[in-house]
Amino acid sequence: MEQYLTQKLRKETVLRDPIHTYVYVHHQIILDLINTAEFQRLRRIKQLGIASLVFPGAEHSRFTHSLGVYEIARQITNYLAQTYPSQIAGDGLWDGNEQMITLIAALLHDLGHGPYSHTFEHIFKTDHERYTQMIITTPGTGINTVLRRVSPNFPRQVAAVINKTYPNPQVVQIISSQIDADRMDYLLRDAYFTGASYGSFDLSRIMRLIKPYKNGIAFSITGMHAIEDYVVSRYQMYQQVYFHPVSRAMEVILTSLLHRAKDLYTKSLTDKAVDSSFIPATLLPFFSGQSTLNDYLMLDDGTLMTYFNAWQYVDDPILSDLASRFLNRKPLKSVLLTSESNKYIPIVKDLIQTSGFNTNYYTAENDSFDMAYAIYQPNAKKPYTQIELINPDGTTVELSSLSHLIQVLADKQAGDRRFFFPKEMLSNPADDLFSGIYVDFQQYLNNNYLKAPKL
Amino acid sequence: MEQYLTQKLRKETVLRDPIHTYVYVHHQIILDLINTAEFQRLRRIKQLGIASLVFPGAEHSRFTHSLGVYEIARQITNYLAQTYPSQIAGDGLWDGNEQMITLIAALLHDLGHGPYSHTFEHIFKTDHERYTQMIITTPGTGINTVLRRVSPNFPRQVAAVINKTYPNPQVVQIISSQIDADRMDYLLRDAYFTGASYGSFDLSRIMRLIKPYKNGIAFSITGMHAIEDYVVSRYQMYQQVYFHPVSRAMEVILTSLLHRAKDLYTKSLTDKAVDSSFIPATLLPFFSGQSTLNDYLMLDDGTLMTYFNAWQYVDDPILSDLASRFLNRKPLKSVLLTSESNKYIPIVKDLIQTSGFNTNYYTAENDSFDMAYAIYQPNAKKPYTQIELINPDGTTVELSSLSHLIQVLADKQAGDRRFFFPKEMLSNPADDLFSGIYVDFQQYLNNNYLKAPKL
Amino acid sequence: MEQYLTQKLRKETVLRDPIHTYVYVHHQIILDLINTAEFQRLRRIKQLGIASLVFPGAEHSRFTHSLGVYEIARQITNYLAQTYPSQIAGDGLWDGNEQMITLIAALLHDLGHGPYSHTFEHIFKTDHERYTQMIITTPGTGINTVLRRVSPNFPRQVAAVINKTYPNPQVVQIISSQIDADRMDYLLRDAYFTGASYGSFDLSRIMRLIKPYKNGIAFSITGMHAIEDYVVSRYQMYQQVYFHPVSRAMEVILTSLLHRAKDLYTKSLTDKAVDSSFIPATLLPFFSGQSTLNDYLMLDDGTLMTYFNAWQYVDDPILSDLASRFLNRKPLKSVLLTSESNKYIPIVKDLIQTSGFNTNYYTAENDSFDMAYAIYQPNAKKPYTQIELINPDGTTVELSSLSHLIQVLADKQAGDRRFFFPKEMLSNPADDLFSGIYVDFQQYLNNNYLKAPKL
Amino acid sequence: MEQYLTQKLRKETVLRDPIHTYVYVHHQIILDLINTAEFQRLRRIKQLGIASLVFPGAEHSRFTHSLGVYEIARQITNYLAQTYPSQIAGDGLWDGNEQMITLIAALLHDLGHGPYSHTFEHIFKTDHERYTQMIITTPGTGINTVLRRVSPNFPRQVAAVINKTYPNPQVVQIISSQIDADRMDYLLRDAYFTGASYGSFDLSRIMRLIKPYKNGIAFSITGMHAIEDYVVSRYQMYQQVYFHPVSRAMEVILTSLLHRAKDLYTKSLTDKAVDSSFIPATLLPFFSGQSTLNDYLMLDDGTLMTYFNAWQYVDDPILSDLASRFLNRKPLKSVLLTSESNKYIPIVKDLIQTSGFNTNYYTAENDSFDMAYAIYQPNAKKPYTQIELINPDGTTVELSSLSHLIQVLADKQAGDRRFFFPKEMLSNPADDLFSGIYVDFQQYLNNNYLKAPKL
Repeated sequence: MEQYLTQKLRKETVLRDPIHTYVYVHHQIILDLINTAEFQRLRRIKQLGIASLVFPGAEHSRFTHSLGVYEIARQITNYLAQTYPSQIAGDGLWDGNEQMITLIAALLHDLGHGPYSHTFEHIFKTDHERYTQMIITTPGTGINTVLRRVSPNFPRQVAAVINKTYPNPQVVQIISSQIDADRMDYLLRDAYFTGASYGSFDLSRIMRLIKPYKNGIAFSITGMHAIEDYVVSRYQMYQQVYFHPVSRAMEVILTSLLHRAKDLYTKSLTDKAVDSSFIPATLLPFFSGQSTLNDYLMLDDGTLMTYFNAWQYVDDPILSDLASRFLNRKPLKSVLLTSESNKYIPIVKDLIQTSGFNTNYYTAENDSFDMAYAIYQPNAKKPYTQIELINPDGTTVELSSLSHLIQVLADKQAGDRRFFFPKEMLSNPADDLFSGIYVDFQQYLNNNYLKAPKL
Repeated sequence: MEQYLTQKLRKETVLRDPIHTYVYVHHQIILDLINTAEFQRLRRIKQLGIASLVFPGAEHSRFTHSLGVYEIARQITNYLAQTYPSQIAGDGLWDGNEQMITLIAALLHDLGHGPYSHTFEHIFKTDHERYTQMIITTPGTGINTVLRRVSPNFPRQVAAVINKTYPNPQVVQIISSQIDADRMDYLLRDAYFTGASYGSFDLSRIMRLIKPYKNGIAFSITGMHAIEDYVVSRYQMYQQVYFHPVSRAMEVILTSLLHRAKDLYTKSLTDKAVDSSFIPATLLPFFSGQSTLNDYLMLDDGTLMTYFNAWQYVDDPILSDLASRFLNRKPLKSVLLTSESNKYIPIVKDLIQTSGFNTNYYTAENDSFDMAYAIYQPNAKKPYTQIELINPDGTTVELSSLSHLIQVLADKQAGDRRFFFPKEMLSNPADDLFSGIYVDFQQYLNNNYLKAPKL
Repeated sequence: MEQYLTQKLRKETVLRDPIHTYVYVHHQIILDLINTAEFQRLRRIKQLGIASLVFPGAEHSRFTHSLGVYEIARQITNYLAQTYPSQIAGDGLWDGNEQMITLIAALLHDLGHGPYSHTFEHIFKTDHERYTQMIITTPGTGINTVLRRVSPNFPRQVAAVINKTYPNPQVVQIISSQIDADRMDYLLRDAYFTGASYGSFDLSRIMRLIKPYKNGIAFSITGMHAIEDYVVSRYQMYQQVYFHPVSRAMEVILTSLLHRAKDLYTKSLTDKAVDSSFIPATLLPFFSGQSTLNDYLMLDDGTLMTYFNAWQYVDDPILSDLASRFLNRKPLKSVLLTSESNKYIPIVKDLIQTSGFNTNYYTAENDSFDMAYAIYQPNAKKPYTQIELINPDGTTVELSSLSHLIQVLADKQAGDRRFFFPKEMLSNPADDLFSGIYVDFQQYLNNNYLKAPKL
Repeated sequence: MEQYLTQKLRKETVLRDPIHTYVYVHHQIILDLINTAEFQRLRRIKQLGIASLVFPGAEHSRFTHSLGVYEIARQITNYLAQTYPSQIAGDGLWDGNEQMITLIAALLHDLGHGPYSHTFEHIFKTDHERYTQMIITTPGTGINTVLRRVSPNFPRQVAAVINKTYPNPQVVQIISSQIDADRMDYLLRDAYFTGASYGSFDLSRIMRLIKPYKNGIAFSITGMHAIEDYVVSRYQMYQQVYFHPVSRAMEVILTSLLHRAKDLYTKSLTDKAVDSSFIPATLLPFFSGQSTLNDYLMLDDGTLMTYFNAWQYVDDPILSDLASRFLNRKPLKSVLLTSESNKYIPIVKDLIQTSGFNTNYYTAENDSFDMAYAIYQPNAKKPYTQIELINPDGTTVELSSLSHLIQVLADKQAGDRRFFFPKEMLSNPADDLFSGIYVDFQQYLNNNYLKAPKL
């Protein structure tokens, strides 16, 4: 039933969207995919996870983002089909037969995300990209069932696009490259919902600069500054939203919370006195390292929050305190670190421990460089990461070789290192038993940096 | 410690908000209230509940709305304090001592909302307004503890403002009247997040029209059209967003789902063969009619969705089917009803039952008039519901007596009545066993109305 | 050279536009028309004329509006061609051969507007609609030269569309009807540039409701509220922007200024002592009633302002004072009139004359009902003025018969009558020689109305 | 009458503004200044001059910009007065007595701008900054008359702020520095009216970062990225809007047009055969180098366009052709230059001359570096040009020393050099008499650069 792939709806369907005005659906298969349980699950997972604790408007889900990526991919493939249709195979122009797989990969690219993915993966050694592949290729999922109607091999093809192993680099780059449908949607969407304007860039202009060539997607050199502006917007969103210190402070608490739960679980295996009955059946497989895809699909933001809610009333004082701090938004405080700061970290950790906080759970060093994002890395090992500008005569030039602005960002100098600690350490010493310790601790804080003590 | 009420923060705190740019917090008590568990709980309850299934962008919570209402109230009270400060008691101008209680009531007015309030209340006979009062006045809640620091009687005073029994009508009307901080925030916010522009109106202009007088808050007559525009925007949001047929169709499913669960529970009390073990401990008190405030505060959107998720795998076929339809967004279909339609309802219900659907759960009549909103009712019994325009000489005129446009809306002619039924009834008859029944059924649908069968 | 009409540009050209993001030009003829002197002249004529004196942001020209109308027409005709292509003549669907004439008529529909058209026409008995026809059909204009390249009869056909005598009612209604490309563009554009949000409506939704039928253009009945919202937005823009009292006050001054110039000219014909040398050669033909098309095309906002600038220094005290008031924005003041007011008008005019103002030039009655706009007149004599909603079965219903809201507006109750007078009459009596007269005059003003004197 | 300076209006007046929602006027003197003829004249001078020929929406005037600068200054001084009020002289905090002079200087800072200032100044050796000073300090102007009511010396003080010689550096820097009310308004305003989003930055955040110190205005270091974003926005507006090649091409035509007029005038002084009667009396003083302030104030965009309109019909073929090209928007074409290009310029100029174009008027080299703008020059000789970030302990750091991004921009690498030539040179050779020359010429154009000929 090959023709299912291109079967049109009798009447186009639209979904209202504040970013793209409408998301247009013209094909039965797209509608069928949206209506699967695995895709609807994305409604229950926030796009920015913890960041909504700092930017309260940012309560949007991975569901709307996925629709947005699809919509941008739809507009790009339409534009390519109209403007640069391939005449003969290998001419470097756009092959219209690739449209549907591009749209489907765009829609499904984030399918494997779970609640608070980054932190959850860190603790439980899961991997949302692997889950995406599994949901698409495992027989029996709603998604796989729909895709298989096209052909038995079609799920693997879709997975290959997302996995960047699909042979047509144009298709791959529309879905994932330095300037792809994914990044363009999330920047605009996160900017809109946070209310921070930094993520805005000129989507309609960039769309018109796109030009296919034999190694993928390039951009007309006449629009160099619009591309530059997009890269700087991305940099600004990282600096001002994604790396926000309070957001990272809440992430530290979540990490400690899951970490504590895991520590208690591990101890309970050998020590009957340690109670791990607070871990619900749906989470147990992750603690024991034996989770299945189905276990994973049962989780969402709401289930985790429901568990954390209950954990507030558990006997373990650290677990219940961390659960309460997370649920009721009590972030840690932080100071910036330089190389000079390193020698003072053990000293302040001692002071914190003396004040009664277990520093394993109540302090952390956190490096926004680690936080998973190359602003721009033209030399990275993964393929397809450069942004190529294309001359009238068809030759291409790498963006950072033309733009001094981008060159700086490519140097990866952005980001910071921070040390996180309980807010209590900043108490007015006069108010408290530990006043001497607090005074000592605060000596090391200097213009937002951890430094040699004043005097 | 009376002065706690007006104690300023050392440095103002701001929360980024896409509607008001910033929410400004200047007082310790406001920050303390925001940081209570009961207030943070509002992050986990969507402002529009089910409507996000139709307008996917509308994933915002009651938390951000509550901050927004506070911010508008803050701007209004600032404007009144600067422009119309009372000189002597009873002069009808604004008494600056009322500022803090106004801000606090604005912030807390929606505290008692729970997940899918409207439907939940309908099934379990709870009442979010009563919960708001309880959270504020019950000793031991985080909110009550903070408020009691002002004075033992202060929680009751705040509750009185929200309850509309507070003596100063200006304070009451800023929080709840036909044109109050609550409505102004939700119109703008819902418009922004749905992406539907209908809810926009000129907030900055309306703010400048506000004028206190001895019976409450009036609006300068020179801005009559701006007020008119606000009322029409509200009407449009009701027509196009809040009364959306697909949203109501999903609400019918949720109602049936909870209804079915309750029916099974009731039967299980007398019939051991009926299993009600699917009802989690946290929900049981609501089924047995013995819930406490604490039980209620444990619930949020995520907990309910977690339960519904599990209910998909329960043996009862109706419960599991409805849970799956709700979770995976499979709305019922609907047709419009007129008085002429009434006699055909039993006929089509028979056809639906014959097709295998229990019509108690799979059909419904639903009247958007009932859906709880008087667009504009100047003659309603509750006090303070008129919008008064004020002349230069201080005399006032009721809005609908000046505006023909508003008069029409006050007539309450808006809204519609619909009959909901399973989508399967619209199947192409050729495809199905029940084809004859489907053909019969579809005869009664005519230009979106339920009518006498075509020939 | 018939094919010139559909000749595509090698590469589409875009013009940046804040309302539609881009205006897309795909055809040589559209570019050629934009590049004519007559079309470029529209850059020098403000869309809202005098209103920019009240809403300073509204400095946009008829040039950008004309491009916007073209762009909306382009989107509509594209949508019709894709969604409702005619299969055989007379099937009531969209005939793709009509696209180019529709776009051209959209672009050119306002070509005959001159500076301050409404006032200028009133004084000099010119007519911008007639000029539009002349520019299109007169051999030798740039526009005519371009159009004639299509065929000798083509200019007349384009003129017929604008004139509403073209046989295809769909084409005519896209350009001029109650809900046409013209009105849709100017509402959005005027709202954007004034900063008044009232004119906003949901263009993208309305575009998707459009449906051709044999009598013209109808709108899907399911979107009735979106259409309703558009009509109310139009009403609000009239009430709050186009009928703004200060704007009308400035228009009264302009009228008086041109009126005074004309009176002096007429007198000078018979009375050598009266000097009319202040009238520049380019304006003279209008005073003598012998203007040609070329004379008209020489005028724009800048030329008139240049003359008015000079008139400030002319000997006639009334002319120079009015010129200075207009140039430096010194509006008259106004009060509302009711039928009861009529008898007091002669009395206050006497007082004004006694204060030293010639009431022929310094007072006026002005009725916004007269100001040329039927909000909605389904029964008007001109054809094509109704808004028709279309049922699934193809039958149509007139909008106001379905919507109570629109019915009220159709009753034409909107607008007001005002009496304009010099601001000096409101002077604090203590400050001035004429204090007694001012006191008397001010007795008649009461809550913004002209009324019986307060005791 | 010193108190006139701070005299409040009985009721605040607002002007609607799409950028700041409202411009608030609270003082009589501000209203009086706005109502002078010199200030109203700014309505007739476009903010972006020629750029509206490329970005058609950009038809806004210097009038609205001046109001916007005033409004931003108003918000800044209010914020400073509330947050950092000076306690004793010399404490580096904000002295509330400086508010009014700051607002007035903000309002008047652009008063001396004339039509197409940059080009006009270039040809006629005038200087808009000098005119600003003259309008303020020359007895008899409307502005001077108002200011003198404060005190005889007050006009000079206001002029000193604009001139940067006023003793309080905080006042000076609010009006003119790298990040002042002027730049902040024009970036936002030009972005809004062009529809190019590049100029957007987070005004509300930046306002909250401002901190006075003894050398002027600094910005809290915690907001470094918001400041960075502002500087990059400025860079992008220069690259994408202000330096737009077509805009510069039109500027070249205007320059040539005025240049030709001046050449004809100069010749006519000695050669009776040369006619210069086309120069109107109002422009003559500029040609003869004897213009007065009054002559200057008579000019605006409309007057110049009126003259150019007439010049289309003058006998001199170059003058009339250039006038027509300017009026009807026929830009020159351009190519980029590198140092390598220099040797080819004489060659292509020869070819152009041979084609019949006088290269004195029809070609130009134009360097956007020259175009008057240092993106960021911390080391410039003029005082007050650095952006200082301020630490919690009061020490300051210069922006580019912290931000790699800004360091690049400070290097002044932005901009380009272009060679402009008539579009005719790009004609399809087959179409024309000069085909051989065109072929030769086009050999030198290569990927938008002027280069060695392609073989």
